[in-house]
Amino acid sequence: MHLDIVKAHGTGNDFVVVEDLDEAVELDEATVAALCDRRRGVGADGVIRVAPGRTAPVFMDHRNADGSHPEMCGNGIRVLAKYCFDRGILNGSTAVVETRAGARTVVAHRDAAGHVCQVGVDMGPPAVGDLAAVLDAGGRTVTASLVGIGNPHAVMFVDDVAAAPVHEVGPLVETHDAFPDGVNVEFATVDSPGAISMRVWERGVGETASCGTGACAVAVVAAETGRASRRVDVSLPGGTLHIDYGDTVTLTGPAVEVFSARVDLNSLGIAEDAVEVG
Amino acid sequence: MHLDIVKAHGTGNDFVVVEDLDEAVELDEATVAALCDRRRGVGADGVIRVAPGRTAPVFMDHRNADGSHPEMCGNGIRVLAKYCFDRGILNGSTAVVETRAGARTVVAHRDAAGHVCQVGVDMGPPAVGDLAAVLDAGGRTVTASLVGIGNPHAVMFVDDVAAAPVHEVGPLVETHDAFPDGVNVEFATVDSPGAISMRVWERGVGETASCGTGACAVAVVAAETGRASRRVDVSLPGGTLHIDYGDTVTLTGPAVEVFSARVDLNSLGIAEDAVEVG
Repeated sequence: MHLDIVKAHGTGNDFVVVEDLDEAVELDEATVAALCDRRRGVGADGVIRVAPGRTAPVFMDHRNADGSHPEMCGNGIRVLAKYCFDRGILNGSTAVVETRAGARTVVAHRDAAGHVCQVGVDMGPPAVGDLAAVLDAGGRTVTASLVGIGNPHAVMFVDDVAAAPVHEVGPLVETHDAFPDGVNVEFATVDSPGAISMRVWERGVGETASCGTGACAVAVVAAETGRASRRVDVSLPGGTLHIDYGDTVTLTGPAVEVFSARVDLNSLGIAEDAVEVG
Repeated sequence: MHLDIVKAHGTGNDFVVVEDLDEAVELDEATVAALCDRRRGVGADGVIRVAPGRTAPVFMDHRNADGSHPEMCGNGIRVLAKYCFDRGILNGSTAVVETRAGARTVVAHRDAAGHVCQVGVDMGPPAVGDLAAVLDAGGRTVTASLVGIGNPHAVMFVDDVAAAPVHEVGPLVETHDAFPDGVNVEFATVDSPGAISMRVWERGVGETASCGTGACAVAVVAAETGRASRRVDVSLPGGTLHIDYGDTVTLTGPAVEVFSARVDLNSLGIAEDAVEVG
């Protein structure tokens, strides 16, 4: 019993992509976890099932390695969009993808060979909150700007992002009483009006190499507080994303397919009935 | 430009296998590192090139993720042997494989479908050293048994392997003056005359889920000191290995192929001339 997949990443955030437009594949939690296992499986942060949409050609059925369903993932939707544009599942330069957070417009940018190399995603309008929230973080007073962009963010500007206390202040802000559902925490330095460097402490995960919605949140705060322009490149450890902040926020960044594979599901050591491949 | 590979593991120690019996593939250090990258590549502890041997059908050209050439790898040779037996590159039940540490005899154990599921490897005779070496490890006196089996090992028996001070004592013994080239450090508990549990601190790596030569070293010391019989199952965090200690040491354990893949070498972001695929 096998499963055909594609492995791809957006700024180092990596996914197993399973095309399932016939809805013939059922992946339970144990199978998702086994596929995401980096030594005994394929290895990924999550699995994206390319499913048929109700009002759009494609629905992004995305699960994290732990089986949870994230509402939206700026890196994952770029990977899914590239997969679909390159195979004619989506056509033209602009298309709509259904996600658990609603419909999202994606824009394809192609290389000389006609393959999609960058994808823009309309992330919708941000919910700009208190831009100068004063928080006590373990006895240290910090000022953060609060923005929602699919999920909640607390953005702090620092002089030197490389030296930012991500691992000390990140968890304290994430679990602060002000955020009963937790919050993603960004540390950013404005390098020029068009360039920002940042690091991110993701809610429930810790420091990660890239966070699409975090980059949007940083760009929105930088624009709203006059620190940078409304079109900026945001550099994260995993790569660079471009943000356009108009009525909505458009996130553009790379999507890279690394390999296509046929996975021997029996090798994963999961129950035989966990995966149904029709 | 693409490269066809198979991803496989032995007790969780995982490898990218590249068949190259025509010697048409040249993999430089940067390519090995890029293939082993767990987010932007295929992800593995190392790359095994299945190359033609001089005196045997196959030579194991094995490189670690950092580009170094390990002399011998008990998990890697099982993976290579399964690959070759299943594809008729090696035939029968017993064959010889060339490695950088010399020729090794491998034994295939097949499942009901005829696929190799376990592989035995003759690791040669052990070099039994001081079985009661007293070492000062950061002010703490420990007694270790020294065995060479392709590479050097210091074995310590403890009451409860789960609670063993692997991360405290491991690095102190590894870098002890008594071992100018470093040493692998094993912590083991004898559960019964035929069963041992162990954990390993690998030289230059840290604690790992499995170490084939380490399991051999533990079994040899247990037999030499009368703690266990000469045929034992050794349980590591990554799985169980079977050791037969006669004139030589035979290590038997699982080899699992997870997927076959076509890798887009351009996606890896390495120089175009780094890989030559003939």
